[in-house]
Amino acid sequence: MLSLEEATARILSRFHPLEAEPVPLLEALGRVLAEDVYAAEDVPPFSNSSMDGYALRAADTRGAAFDHPVVLRIVADIAAGSSTTVEVLPGTAARINTGAPIPLGADAVVRFEDTSEARLSPEERRAPQRGEIAILVQVAPGANVRPAGEDIRRGQLVLARGTPQRPFEIGVLASLGRSRVSVIRKPRVGILATGDELVDLDQPLGPGQVRDSNEYSLAALVLRYGGIPVRLGIARDRAEEIRRKLEEGQRAGIDLYLTSAGVSVGAHDWMTEVLAQEGDLELWKVAIRPGKPLAFGNFRGVPLLGLPGNPVSAAVTFELFARPALLIMQGRSRWAKPTLEVILEEDLASDERTSFLRAVVSHRDGAYYARTTGPQGSHVLTSLSRANALVIVPAGARLRAGERAQAQMLDWPEEVDLPSSQPSASGAERRSG
Amino acid sequence: MLSLEEATARILSRFHPLEAEPVPLLEALGRVLAEDVYAAEDVPPFSNSSMDGYALRAADTRGAAFDHPVVLRIVADIAAGSSTTVEVLPGTAARINTGAPIPLGADAVVRFEDTSEARLSPEERRAPQRGEIAILVQVAPGANVRPAGEDIRRGQLVLARGTPQRPFEIGVLASLGRSRVSVIRKPRVGILATGDELVDLDQPLGPGQVRDSNEYSLAALVLRYGGIPVRLGIARDRAEEIRRKLEEGQRAGIDLYLTSAGVSVGAHDWMTEVLAQEGDLELWKVAIRPGKPLAFGNFRGVPLLGLPGNPVSAAVTFELFARPALLIMQGRSRWAKPTLEVILEEDLASDERTSFLRAVVSHRDGAYYARTTGPQGSHVLTSLSRANALVIVPAGARLRAGERAQAQMLDWPEEVDLPSSQPSASGAERRSG
Repeated sequence: MLSLEEATARILSRFHPLEAEPVPLLEALGRVLAEDVYAAEDVPPFSNSSMDGYALRAADTRGAAFDHPVVLRIVADIAAGSSTTVEVLPGTAARINTGAPIPLGADAVVRFEDTSEARLSPEERRAPQRGEIAILVQVAPGANVRPAGEDIRRGQLVLARGTPQRPFEIGVLASLGRSRVSVIRKPRVGILATGDELVDLDQPLGPGQVRDSNEYSLAALVLRYGGIPVRLGIARDRAEEIRRKLEEGQRAGIDLYLTSAGVSVGAHDWMTEVLAQEGDLELWKVAIRPGKPLAFGNFRGVPLLGLPGNPVSAAVTFELFARPALLIMQGRSRWAKPTLEVILEEDLASDERTSFLRAVVSHRDGAYYARTTGPQGSHVLTSLSRANALVIVPAGARLRAGERAQAQMLDWPEEVDLPSSQPSASGAERRSG
Repeated sequence: MLSLEEATARILSRFHPLEAEPVPLLEALGRVLAEDVYAAEDVPPFSNSSMDGYALRAADTRGAAFDHPVVLRIVADIAAGSSTTVEVLPGTAARINTGAPIPLGADAVVRFEDTSEARLSPEERRAPQRGEIAILVQVAPGANVRPAGEDIRRGQLVLARGTPQRPFEIGVLASLGRSRVSVIRKPRVGILATGDELVDLDQPLGPGQVRDSNEYSLAALVLRYGGIPVRLGIARDRAEEIRRKLEEGQRAGIDLYLTSAGVSVGAHDWMTEVLAQEGDLELWKVAIRPGKPLAFGNFRGVPLLGLPGNPVSAAVTFELFARPALLIMQGRSRWAKPTLEVILEEDLASDERTSFLRAVVSHRDGAYYARTTGPQGSHVLTSLSRANALVIVPAGARLRAGERAQAQMLDWPEEVDLPSSQPSASGAERRSG
């Protein structure tokens, strides 16, 4: 049997970031920057006021106070979005709006509330002010002024190649005037189910037939982790049909094939036969539970990951192997699964494999508690739909309630309202199937 | 000043889940179920084998062992996807594939590895087996049999209205044969920037003008939290232009208006003037930093949330107020922001408001550590793009390095590779601007 680490290393060594493509700014969300972005402009582009008030020379406010106003002559009214050539000389001030450029000569802004304008009604304030203004506080140079380039200097490296684009990075790029940006393209993932017993959703269910649920859960997982799922449908257990589906994927420009098939000794035989001629396929037993049987190879050079057919095994092996492969193809440098340290609420044991047990992790009093979601049979998908985490029980470990373990999180504990699982029989151990 | 709790309660009391709409299964991903889903079929639909092997009567294996085989007559070869009417009588066995239906009379499966077939090559095993098979182990009734309805029983409530649809729920619905499902529709969010100084990305930047970055970061935030952003563009500071943009939104079927505008005393005057006639607008000072000024009201009955114009204030108030509103409209029952307890790596203080300080939270040795990302001015968007968390410093608190605080997480610490911030000057306190 291969260890989890060895299987992971072998698989991930075959994946590299895909090529870049230019996209409109908003489409970069969730993707990885494929260029170093330098600032073509200062941000903010000019020194501006952070308040509605009066731009003036700080020196003119020396000694100003509520009961000792300094009176200045109003020489301009500068709105946001306007430009001005006025110069604020000693003894004068320019009325200024938030975001408006600081005029020549001025080095500080006193807000309305600290001037005689505070006594005016909003309507009166909207009219241009003329004449004189009484300043009621003393300010230092730079007060309420945002200097040009305070956030970003022209020529500066602002966002480096490899940076994931969150809403804040999108905002930064917008502030630089970038309407298009180069990001790593999304991987196209061909999803192929194999099995004579599988029936698609719209078909009637005949005797001996089951729904092809893996195709949909795997497509949803591909979407969740940033890929484009391409449905190749169901191939019957015949070499020619499998080859035809893989060729369909090739024409669709697939970057990765995901197949799910029976978990039995011979289930990958047909796939192996096809790939023996036009690629390769290795069958591994990985020391994990659920999900021991795994196939990895390529079809005409495109990687193919053969997941087990049991729905839970397929989903868990996707999380362990396909998710990091997808993230690497998208140029992400981090692909470790978010993990919390949890306190176990029941006894848990593992055999000679590392177990990933479906569990609900809840957050109480600053600690995280984990309880499994009932029967751990690898075909019982509902137990995964009640879980927000996979608790890791190392090979050979027997953990007691109250002990600590690591939980790979499928969601934040705060995010999804899950029916908490039934309390387990006292001291009963659960094993995955 | 309104407390954060009071402002949140007032705003969120105005939001309710939107209507349901039927969608193809895969489009339900990330959305909330608007119907109770009952099983129309058992899952699995029939008792089937979890192994490739021989279906037989467990009683016939009594005493079987490697050196004491029990020999049974092969009466059928049942492939997955086939139906069979054969009955397994005492002294007989049916060869069976994983997933194939258990034939009448049989109550257990012995896997190939525990029969004389283990000696055959894969090629030989693919051919139909005839004659007799030697069983080398004793099994109990039910061994390697997955009973019909083990995962889901026909008529059972499987997924309740209100359940968020993750990949696993999509898989469960597929296993029930559901190709369409009813979910809460996505909220349409109209995004309106107001300000004479704003210029869109493709325009040249004139004197006194700045890029309209909020429109893009807010649109990206709307997308991230499941809404559909509808760009209403930039309105100049004139009542008629604002009214026209809001009417455009109305025609587009907007569920929520998000505006961002100057943060000054008079900045919402125009908006207030428009809404005085056709809705209402309250101007609040909320005791948070950044983001004190906030406007909330409605235009012809559609809620309008007026965010501050400073990029960081706009993003933080989005997280605090717009994100939960969006989640409620989508039918989510949980909208608390995921929060981790962190150990501070520097001294942090707050004034009379609750501060949300941009920080990098990192995971080391089972604990989480937080360090702020430099200048906390509310117009310095790059400090947010270097952060994965907002550390909460309660009003009036002075926290020392090494003390604990709560951090609202923007991402999992494992997810995004961030340049760690500069070490702060020893003992220096940072304040948000």
